[in-house]
Formats: sequence, structure tokens, C-alpha cells
Amino acid sequence: MTTLQDCRALDARDPLRPLRDLFVLPPEVIYLDGNSLGPLPRAAQERVARTVTEEWGHGLIRSWNSAGWYEMPRTLGDRIATLIGARAGECVATDSTSVNLFKVLSAACAIAKHERPDAKVILSERTNFPTDLYIAQTFCREHGMRLVLAESDALSERLDDQVAVLMLTHVNYRTGAMHDMRELTRRAHRAGALAIWDLCHSAGAVPIDLHAADADFAIGCGYKYLNGGPGAPAFLWVHPRHADRFEQPLSGWWSHAAPFEFTSGYRPAQGIARYLCGTQPILSMVALECGLDTLRAADRFGGMQALRAKSLALTDLFIALVEQRCAGHGLALVTPRDHAVRGSQVCLAREEGAYAIVQALIARGVIGDFRAPDILRFGFTPLHLGYEDVWNAVEHLCQVLGSGEWRGDEFNRRNAVT
Amino acid sequence: MTTLQDCRALDARDPLRPLRDLFVLPPEVIYLDGNSLGPLPRAAQERVARTVTEEWGHGLIRSWNSAGWYEMPRTLGDRIATLIGARAGECVATDSTSVNLFKVLSAACAIAKHERPDAKVILSERTNFPTDLYIAQTFCREHGMRLVLAESDALSERLDDQVAVLMLTHVNYRTGAMHDMRELTRRAHRAGALAIWDLCHSAGAVPIDLHAADADFAIGCGYKYLNGGPGAPAFLWVHPRHADRFEQPLSGWWSHAAPFEFTSGYRPAQGIARYLCGTQPILSMVALECGLDTLRAADRFGGMQALRAKSLALTDLFIALVEQRCAGHGLALVTPRDHAVRGSQVCLAREEGAYAIVQALIARGVIGDFRAPDILRFGFTPLHLGYEDVWNAVEHLCQVLGSGEWRGDEFNRRNAVT
Repeated sequence: MTTLQDCRALDARDPLRPLRDLFVLPPEVIYLDGNSLGPLPRAAQERVARTVTEEWGHGLIRSWNSAGWYEMPRTLGDRIATLIGARAGECVATDSTSVNLFKVLSAACAIAKHERPDAKVILSERTNFPTDLYIAQTFCREHGMRLVLAESDALSERLDDQVAVLMLTHVNYRTGAMHDMRELTRRAHRAGALAIWDLCHSAGAVPIDLHAADADFAIGCGYKYLNGGPGAPAFLWVHPRHADRFEQPLSGWWSHAAPFEFTSGYRPAQGIARYLCGTQPILSMVALECGLDTLRAADRFGGMQALRAKSLALTDLFIALVEQRCAGHGLALVTPRDHAVRGSQVCLAREEGAYAIVQALIARGVIGDFRAPDILRFGFTPLHLGYEDVWNAVEHLCQVLGSGEWRGDEFNRRNAVT
Repeated sequence: MTTLQDCRALDARDPLRPLRDLFVLPPEVIYLDGNSLGPLPRAAQERVARTVTEEWGHGLIRSWNSAGWYEMPRTLGDRIATLIGARAGECVATDSTSVNLFKVLSAACAIAKHERPDAKVILSERTNFPTDLYIAQTFCREHGMRLVLAESDALSERLDDQVAVLMLTHVNYRTGAMHDMRELTRRAHRAGALAIWDLCHSAGAVPIDLHAADADFAIGCGYKYLNGGPGAPAFLWVHPRHADRFEQPLSGWWSHAAPFEFTSGYRPAQGIARYLCGTQPILSMVALECGLDTLRAADRFGGMQALRAKSLALTDLFIALVEQRCAGHGLALVTPRDHAVRGSQVCLAREEGAYAIVQALIARGVIGDFRAPDILRFGFTPLHLGYEDVWNAVEHLCQVLGSGEWRGDEFNRRNAVT
């Protein structure tokens, strides 16, 4: 049996503990939703204020050069590259995940069409994040292709010679289950298909090595584990073997070989800049830079490997404490126990009241989230969470379940209108 | 002959003068580049800081609802609608101009293809802003269409039955010439074509009435005359007669009828929300809100009509003073003298040294910009500029031209490397 004292002892010897001070967190909150919106890096307050007052207010238009604004999609892309096993010059921070998926899906399908014109299938997972499926559905309708959805464990057998592109999210947003990127990419390639990886729920949370996996394209989110702030720019990576092969359809001026020549003819930039489109939101971009700084700070303490070790320890502890202390309350573990296939979140299913229980927890300051129809989802960010936080979160969960307070009118009302 | 005293007298009786205090402007700067990046609204400093520290830092994920983040593309879109002759629910603030152009171009061409399958031409202006042409070129290549470019005065005669879409920028970025939106839209419709208007250089600068012009689609920029900050989200308007007719290809979850049901099947939202895609950059969005507040503040002083009157007075004055005081220095007026076809900028061409002259002016604190190959471009934002500013800007221009200081090594060097 794990005790509160055990948790405090774990915190006392946690080498990553100093990283917590990089964030501003409300004292009354246990934040288990960094997988949806990462918390505020302390440095972002000053950095964003400086960008507003000095760079925009004083520098004005000159700051596009003098403050490095123009280079930010590439400089931040290079920073993100270090977190995902990519190299400098291969990644850009830009646009939204959905827009970036459209770009790489267009590229992957165009390359596939050229090489294997009869392969007309985009294969994905039935429980992939909806926006990925929506983008792919519309793309298929417009391009005479077909989106095939399979359960997670049936993906390999569906990888036949009809498949042009395998499009998967590395860590599932609803279950926290993590795919074996290397093995699935290998099987995709063996079938002749290209592999697109959505890293929204894994970049900054688990070690990723796109080159080792020999992936073809990747996209991901800036506002989850990268702590880039609400709606932070997303990112996009293309393997260098593909970068110059295709002109993606969102061919705005930032993707031009010489954007400031203002010529009327489109001439795509070489390399990853070709995947830019229009002008990027700089205030949100500098906040993302601060988010990336919090991950870089972890390098002194063992970097992504150390973060991963702590993430697994936190999720192991949460699972153990829920089973130890909330037994008999109808909670079912959805997230895999096996470390090799677990992301940095724990999801619990409950037939009744999942939404209301999450609301009751939030009212107590334990912020997780609900995912329809029956999932209580808890994200664990090792940069700022401690073991005692996990103890306290489970304590609140026990109390909510034991008291039945989630059955109250307030929560039912909110359940009804949301 | 206009004198400095005349200019001061004009400032003294300028009813819009108090609006200048809404902005933070460096005291040593005369800012004639608000058509490229609008200056900092004073209120944005506190507003962005509050969003960072309170909404993000304290509210965390809860702020998507409690701080209204989720609604911002629509609430800001409604605010922009009031500036462009559109109605609530017809406009969204989102993504970049280039991405939004791709959406509306896809919609317009799909509608045209359905109604007039033989019309395969997108007609635009040869000197349209390059990103619009780049997006259209790639779109045409992928969709079997043809981009035809005509000079401004030849557009009407090129509007034949081959034209599916007329795609124009209302005010030309290089010349400051303004199209007659109503007349060109009428001619487009008479030819059976749809009209897309890019309002980047006119929204917030000149009165626009999209409904009176019976336009079909419009897009525009948040960071120029809307003062939304570097890379602020752009906007997109669709006439209600078209809004539900087409599912645009960037069909991300924000365009879904019920995004938080997380269903795997795409079902587009009704109305303008269908033109959203992914999660938007909130820090940049709140700065845009502050920019829109500066335009709303003008309502007390006569609104867009009063701003237009002052804009024309400022550009008239600049033209007159340049001709009066810089004669013989090889400057040629590019911008039309006719008020009916002039935007809110004045462009001067000079065969030699245009880039270096602009650099010399910037070194003196007079910030305009250079547009290749030979244009000195000066934007006039009536919200903050005064008549004495115009006098002083021309005084500096005279001195730069008279002294030949732009011929110095420094400027030649910078010219060579940029």
C-alpha cells in the first residue's frame, strides 16, 4: 500500500522537482489537463509583455527583422525538432494542426499517386482524433480516395497494397494508448505506403525519434505538452527525402523562394519553408518559445528520458492509488498498463456520471477533463506535477465518488446544457 | 503654398485628434507604415497581460469557456463585419489571409463548377498582392483551371463567359489604387462569375459595403489597418447565399456542427462557422480585439466616414507637399489623385535609390517602406497621424533627397545584402 508519506518521499528525491518553479500554477489547483492546455511558463509573462511593448510598440514594423519575428517559424521549428528526433531545417512552427495535416496529407497523397496510382486508401484508426478524420474525409471526397478506419489492433492487417497513406496519432487522445511508431511505419513502408504521424499527444511528453522510425511526415500541437499557450502555433515536419518533391496547396508567400521580391510567379522555397503559408501570429509564437524553454530546461536533469521516467512513475502511481483507494466505484482503466504502449495520461471509464464527476473534481480544484461518452481523462506533465499532487487528486476522486456529490443538481444541470 | 502653421491649424481643429492617445507610439517616430503593421493600441498591453496571467495562468483550460476564448473567432468576426458592410454571423476572425483565400477560392470555384462547368478561368490583376496569385496558381494547377492576369483597366473587358471567379484586392498594395468594388462585382455577375474581394489594404481604412456591392466572398488582414498586432488572425466573409453550399477543404474540428461530440464523421456547421478549421492563437486574438476597439472608438467621432475624410485630407496634403517641396528630385506619383480610386496610402516611384531613400528615412524615424523595384510607400492611418506629422515627414524626405545622404556607404551596403 502506497501512503501519503511515500508520495512525499518521492517528491523529496525527485530530481525534476526544481522545474516546477518554471510555471505559474494557482495554489488551489491540481492541474491534470496539461495534455489539453499546458500551464503558463513563468517567463512568458515578461516575454510576451516585452514583445507587445518593446517589439511591437517601439520596434513597430522593424521588428520583423530586428526582433527575429520573421525567422520564428524556422527557429522554433528547429527547437521542436530536438524533441522529436528530427534535425535542424526539417521542422516549422506554423498554422494549426488541422491546417498542417491538410498540407502533409496533400503531399503524401500526391507522392503516392505519382508512385502507386492504384493505391487509393488512407488508412487510419477509428478512434483517431476527430479533426484528423474530418480533414481526411473531405480530402478523400475531393481527390477520389477512400478513408478506411480500423481498430488499433487491426491496423497491420489492413496495410495492403491499396493503402497510399497510413495516418495515425501517436498517442490516442481518448485512451492514452501509444502506437509503436517504428514498427507501424516499417509495416506501412513494406506495403508501399507513406506514414504520417500526429504527435499532438506525444511531443514533449514521450521520447520520439522520427528518423529512427523512418517516418515520412509529422505534425503536432504547440499548446499541449509544449506549453505554448492557448491556440499556440502547431508544427510540421517532413522527411528531407520528401521535402522538395511536392508543392503543397497552401502556397502562400511565406512558402515562396523569395517572398520579398514580390514577383507574380510562384516559385517554391527549397526545404521545409515550402510548408509555410501566410504571416504567423507573433504574440502566440513568442509564448510558444517560452513553452519550449521549459522543456529545454529539463536537459540539465536528463531531458526527455528523465521526463519519461517520471511520467511513467506518476501514471503508475495514479493507477495504483485509484485501484487501491477507489475500488468498487465502477471505474475501469482504459489506458494500457504496459509502459511500452502508454502515453502520459490515464483515462478511466465509468458507465454513469463521468461528465458530472469531472465537473465535481474541477469544482474542488482537480482539473482533468471529460471525453464523450464515458471517459475521465487525466494528463500528467512531469515538468510540474509531483507525487503528492497525485495522492491528493486521488483523494479528491475518492471523496467525490464516496459522497455522491456529483449527483447534485448543479452538476446535472451543467451536464444537461453542455 | 501650405505652411507648417497651416498643418498645425489643421491638427488643432481635427475632431479625430483624441484618438491618437489610444496608441503607444515612439516619440521619435513618424509612423507611415500602419498599412503594413498597425501601431500598438495602448489597451493591448494590459489586455494581453491579463490574458496571459489571469486567463491562461489562473483560468487554465477553463478559460476556453469562462474567458470566451472559444467564441472569439465569431465575436471578433461580428466586430469586423461592422467595418465592411456585413452582418453579424457572416464573418469570422481566423487563420491567415492566404489560408482564408484558399478556403473561399475553393468554395467559389466549386460553386462555379457546379453552375457553369465550362468556366475555367480565375481572373485577377497582374499587380495583385503576390500571395493571392500564388494561392490561385497552385489551385488552378490542381483543379484544371487557368489563372488569367490583366492590367487594372483591362479587367472589365476580360470578364467573358470563361471566367468562373473574379479575384481582386480592393486597394492595391503597391500603388494604393482602389477598385470600384460595386461596379466590378456587377460586371462579374453579369458575366456569370463570382467575386472574391481581398480587403487587406482597405478594411479599417476606407468605407466598405460588401452587401451593397453584392460581393460573394471576402477576406482580409488583421494586422494592418485593424491594428491587431504582428501576424494577427485574418478574417473571412461569405455572403449568406453561399455559406451553406459548399464544404471547404480545411474541414477541421472547429468547422464541425458539434465539435465537442468528438464523432468520427464530419458534419459541417451551418453558416460561417463552416469556414473555421483548427484552434486559434488566443494571445494574438485578444490583441486583435484591442485593435478593433481603436476603430470602434472612432464611432463617437463620425466613424469610418470621418476616418475616410481625414485619410483623404492627409494623403492630399502629403501629395501637395511633396510636389511643392521635393520637385526636381525625380519622384513620380503612383497613387491616383482621384479620391474615388485612392486608398489610404501614397506611393512614389523613383528610378534610382528608392530602397536606400526609404532606409535613410527610417534612420531619421520616418517609417515607410520600399516595394520592389522602385516604390517608396507611405501609409496614412487617420486614427493616429496628424497633419504636422505629414509636414515633418515631407521635410525629412526633402532633406534626404537634398543631402544625398541615401547615397552613403551604409545604405548601399544594406541595399546590396537585402
